[in-house]
Amino acid sequence: MYKDLNTTLDDYCKKIEDHLLSFTADKPALRSIVYEAMEYSLMAGGKRLRPVLMLEFCRMCGGDPDKYLDLACTIEMIHTFSLIHDDLPCMDDDDFRRGKPSCHKAFPESIALLAGDALNTLPFEVISENALNGVIDPRTAVMLVSVLSKAVGCEGMIGGQVIDLMSEGKDISVEDLNELQSHKTGALIEAACVMGVILAGKYNMIAHAAAYASALGRAFQIVDDILDVTSTFEELGKPIGSDVQQHKCTYVSALGLDRAYIEAQKLTSEALSILDSFEDNGFLQELTSKLLNRRS
Amino acid sequence: MYKDLNTTLDDYCKKIEDHLLSFTADKPALRSIVYEAMEYSLMAGGKRLRPVLMLEFCRMCGGDPDKYLDLACTIEMIHTFSLIHDDLPCMDDDDFRRGKPSCHKAFPESIALLAGDALNTLPFEVISENALNGVIDPRTAVMLVSVLSKAVGCEGMIGGQVIDLMSEGKDISVEDLNELQSHKTGALIEAACVMGVILAGKYNMIAHAAAYASALGRAFQIVDDILDVTSTFEELGKPIGSDVQQHKCTYVSALGLDRAYIEAQKLTSEALSILDSFEDNGFLQELTSKLLNRRS
Repeated sequence: MYKDLNTTLDDYCKKIEDHLLSFTADKPALRSIVYEAMEYSLMAGGKRLRPVLMLEFCRMCGGDPDKYLDLACTIEMIHTFSLIHDDLPCMDDDDFRRGKPSCHKAFPESIALLAGDALNTLPFEVISENALNGVIDPRTAVMLVSVLSKAVGCEGMIGGQVIDLMSEGKDISVEDLNELQSHKTGALIEAACVMGVILAGKYNMIAHAAAYASALGRAFQIVDDILDVTSTFEELGKPIGSDVQQHKCTYVSALGLDRAYIEAQKLTSEALSILDSFEDNGFLQELTSKLLNRRS
Repeated sequence: MYKDLNTTLDDYCKKIEDHLLSFTADKPALRSIVYEAMEYSLMAGGKRLRPVLMLEFCRMCGGDPDKYLDLACTIEMIHTFSLIHDDLPCMDDDDFRRGKPSCHKAFPESIALLAGDALNTLPFEVISENALNGVIDPRTAVMLVSVLSKAVGCEGMIGGQVIDLMSEGKDISVEDLNELQSHKTGALIEAACVMGVILAGKYNMIAHAAAYASALGRAFQIVDDILDVTSTFEELGKPIGSDVQQHKCTYVSALGLDRAYIEAQKLTSEALSILDSFEDNGFLQELTSKLLNRRS
């Protein structure tokens, strides 16, 4: 079934984006603007890494990913909610996201806030609907709600955003940086992989999926931090040194560029070796390596 | 068991507030501030009307409310999240809530935003935990997640907030005002009553609980609108006329003060007569009447 990385990735992305669009297709009168804002941010690009991971873990564990496209969208909704709220003036105050005006620039700030709120709630509606419709059984739904809500809340992504805010302008240790990253970006990547395994009902593989996600999540964040620095330097036409210092606490500011890259390589190898526990893992092997060497 | 209104209400409120406190008792390092902000707003007073309704509908339908105090807190978490986000500068920009600094005045605005987000997610964690622990069965959990998430999202409370924002400065019809109110405040009150019935497993009473909630929710909102006007006039020492006009669209601006009060009385009678379908309804009969004649 697996041909090559890009064909498989494009195929997944097309299915995911078609399904994402279906959630905002009806735009009821008087409140249509919030559906437009949700759709604007849901469709503003992105790698769709999290839903792809969910579907692929489901497939590797013997499940049929095509049955669970709605459920794969739940993790992208949460990711999108976090981006909308992160960009707000009281947070990072970013006017642009992926080269387009951020949600609160394309819509009133109040509507962006509420679109984010709605995308925080909608996943739980989708999971429960899929149980009421018989796509998944109630026990599976409860596990999905548990994993997803923990990954979002104060012990997950939101907690990570708080640690990030509280660390601003401070030098923090690599341990605290790991704590920050494992909450802010790691928790949702882990939830994606674990939810895929749960959908396939192969509970003995949950710990392996979580371990893979933990290594991948950290490698992904380190590469993000490296790209932030190198693209800035490339834009400025300056040489890239390993002694780069930034105001933000990142793996590059904590480890330096060279050690950060070595750490990302080490974590990628670790993720790849954990993948060996899964059958038919060719696509994810290739995707994992590609994420290490990505340029954006 | 039912002695008098205030004793029963105080007893419920004490239990609810004790349980609300338990969710923020642990405040992990590096991110304790978000737990403090959640606790600040959860404990900032309020009538606890929604959890009381959930527990009382559960009890009237033969369930044991003391088993479900955690679950009753979920509806208060959602209510509190909505108040925190409503008060933010990009929404109503209110510096005070119930006479105390609003969350974003007592904490940084970013933390208030994230505390609201966390209180939007936490209810789903609580419901799934109660299923994993065996307090409720998975099917009940799915129903609760479904009812609650729909009441919160674009078809519920958040949708109502959007209609409210879009109606600002406009004259809207009583029909549109009903649409606004049934989403913005009605949906969560209905969810509270319906969730109580679901907890007791008496599904044939769901429609009655929803009809009661619909009448109560509208009466409650009309009385709110009346109190907004009359308290303002009392403060100013001016006579209260029935021709009061405000900039905000309210039942008073749409109907005038006298007709608004008559409408609230009519809806209260309707709610009281629906309550007759429930056994042992003394407490809720009295509470419903009291809400019509409240002074704050």
